[in-house]
Amino acid sequence: MRYDIAIVGSGPAGLSAAINGKIRKKNIIVFGNENLSNKLVKAPSIDNYLGFYDISGDELKDKFKKHIENMDIEISTKKINNVYAMGEYFALMSGDDMFEATTVILATGVEYGKPIKGEEEFLGKGVGYCATCDAPLYRDKKVAIIGYNKESEEEANFLNEIASKTYFIPMYKNEGLMRSLNDLDSSIEVINERPIKIQGDNLVNSVAFKENEIDVDGVFVIKDSASPKALVPGIETDGPHIKVDINMKTSIEGCFASGDCVGKPYSYIKSAGQGQIAALSAVSYLDKLKIEQKKQQK
Amino acid sequence: MRYDIAIVGSGPAGLSAAINGKIRKKNIIVFGNENLSNKLVKAPSIDNYLGFYDISGDELKDKFKKHIENMDIEISTKKINNVYAMGEYFALMSGDDMFEATTVILATGVEYGKPIKGEEEFLGKGVGYCATCDAPLYRDKKVAIIGYNKESEEEANFLNEIASKTYFIPMYKNEGLMRSLNDLDSSIEVINERPIKIQGDNLVNSVAFKENEIDVDGVFVIKDSASPKALVPGIETDGPHIKVDINMKTSIEGCFASGDCVGKPYSYIKSAGQGQIAALSAVSYLDKLKIEQKKQQK
Repeated sequence: MRYDIAIVGSGPAGLSAAINGKIRKKNIIVFGNENLSNKLVKAPSIDNYLGFYDISGDELKDKFKKHIENMDIEISTKKINNVYAMGEYFALMSGDDMFEATTVILATGVEYGKPIKGEEEFLGKGVGYCATCDAPLYRDKKVAIIGYNKESEEEANFLNEIASKTYFIPMYKNEGLMRSLNDLDSSIEVINERPIKIQGDNLVNSVAFKENEIDVDGVFVIKDSASPKALVPGIETDGPHIKVDINMKTSIEGCFASGDCVGKPYSYIKSAGQGQIAALSAVSYLDKLKIEQKKQQK
Repeated sequence: MRYDIAIVGSGPAGLSAAINGKIRKKNIIVFGNENLSNKLVKAPSIDNYLGFYDISGDELKDKFKKHIENMDIEISTKKINNVYAMGEYFALMSGDDMFEATTVILATGVEYGKPIKGEEEFLGKGVGYCATCDAPLYRDKKVAIIGYNKESEEEANFLNEIASKTYFIPMYKNEGLMRSLNDLDSSIEVINERPIKIQGDNLVNSVAFKENEIDVDGVFVIKDSASPKALVPGIETDGPHIKVDINMKTSIEGCFASGDCVGKPYSYIKSAGQGQIAALSAVSYLDKLKIEQKKQQK
């Protein structure tokens, strides 16, 4: 069988696309995981999803789950390895299985690069990826920002307004670095050394370097991501992100994208909003296709 | 005082911008109404706001209200008539009051009413959107108020104190209409007919109906929100919508927009997502400005 819309990803962008596709009576399939979003469930407290104040990621995930269950939307846990544009349809490969769909919505999130030792282990237990989301937890505490890009300096300045002590560990080197680090608040301590390990007991308590370590209550890892070109051969990207227009169309006809994978800000309601736009663009594409096919049959 | 961010509109886009601006510790002001969004509260059942299934618009409004109350965000009910880009800041005019802000986020929604023939042509030449602002021009003259909401009746009463003759043309119908029209001064002439055209030579001189016309010197069109060009002189638009890029930047530096006013789909979570993007773009703009100012001081 051929689906109208295949959605790759079950975070806020994918789910929002799913409910909108279903409301518009399209035949959809959603590929994701049972947790819906590993990033979401680990968020300790979310204040910026309008309608829910001070909600944990896990609670918000439950709200999302209830919403899709009420609409009889199921998540396939098959992992999609490749999406090929075949002309009239897309072939979504999962190991030896193949799924066909007339349109595809990519909502894959951002793939983080190689993690630092301890980074994944302590995710949600002192390690976070979003300063704006988690900063309130670290009021008057000690934090380290491990920054892979220039934007991480802004996050460091923001955290420094809240934390009692802020360390900044730049993981990037470029000609702008020396100049740009001058934009950091002078009270931030810069450590020009690669961290070897994030460590702790139940919660993070330190970051280890080759010869010394620093005591911290929290670590923010601010990264870009790997390219989605491996997933969808031929798709146009802009750095780590899939290029889309304001209607969430990618460079490939019939293929739409939304959420973290199309760019910053990496946040939940922005992703849900874009998922909705992507679904409605896919619906509009499908409806036009149907009209054209009818005309050709005449 | 000068605010960091002034947000015009209290629907999902404006509120989402507000909570994100507040989380990023910016000094914000939100202009809107106590109902938050007249469109939202009238929605019977909403299924496509991820996290809430089968919720009434009024209930969702209450969720939004609780969210902003938890974050100590208040709504100013001052109506903004004009936003002027002054170079280093924006001046937001509300009758005789002026508010200053370094950045502006427009989240005004869309007026579904199509403009009346001649309305745009004679804007500033006898057609106005703000009785309080322009009333002195019509002392002892004849004016018509074309009112799309209950508030327009107050404007009519106010104009009637100044003008020699006042016509009131209600464009809305509801159960409260007959009662509420009793609040109009008895010397105001009510015309229960749709106007077809506002006409004149250089300046307005009459309003035409199907079979007759009335001679007037001025026409006030009182809607929930003005067209973007009337609100923000010089802003680039695309039909009824404000032109924005993917970061919600408008054609005016420091001015951002989100929600229904930037285009379709007209829906709640799309608006909330865009409001978040607009706020984070404004924050980034403010932070860059601060760094530049520091450099110049050195």
